[in-house]
Amino acid sequence: MTDPATLTLAAIQRHIAERYEQVDRARGTPKTFLWLIEEIGELATALHGTDRANLEEEFADVIAWLCTLANINDVDLASAIAKKYLGEKRPEGHK
Amino acid sequence: MTDPATLTLAAIQRHIAERYEQVDRARGTPKTFLWLIEEIGELATALHGTDRANLEEEFADVIAWLCTLANINDVDLASAIAKKYLGEKRPEGHK
Repeated sequence: MTDPATLTLAAIQRHIAERYEQVDRARGTPKTFLWLIEEIGELATALHGTDRANLEEEFADVIAWLCTLANINDVDLASAIAKKYLGEKRPEGHK
Repeated sequence: MTDPATLTLAAIQRHIAERYEQVDRARGTPKTFLWLIEEIGELATALHGTDRANLEEEFADVIAWLCTLANINDVDLASAIAKKYLGEKRPEGHK
């Protein structure tokens, strides 16, 4: 398994693209958004529960679907995060 | 600005923790989840539009709030992703 400590967001997004992008692009943004929301719902359920493994899995699924949505909309998530949260104009007191 | 290509998910989550975790923990999971959903809504709006900079920013905000939610629930996102998507038992044909 990849060492999580060295795992870049770019590598995660690329991995999701390599495995799923062709199908994801064919599905398109609206249907992909529905999948993301389904996973968000499952995350809500997991946050209510006590199953830690399931909670971790649901967080992973939300990130995976967010990567998918970014891929089919040609958005580089790491660049977006760096620009908004790690640049000079980053939000100070709030997000 | 940090080089997006080398930006680890762990560093992003840590950065959000360092800047916001105290306030985030005081707010708690249910209210933080509301913020996440608000950002998801803004992402939906941006996906309808043509403003690329705004679209990137909304993706960044969703990731930031997902990091927040993970932080206050003691979930390591990079480990969760590595376990689910980069391990030996990763999903083959679908997420």
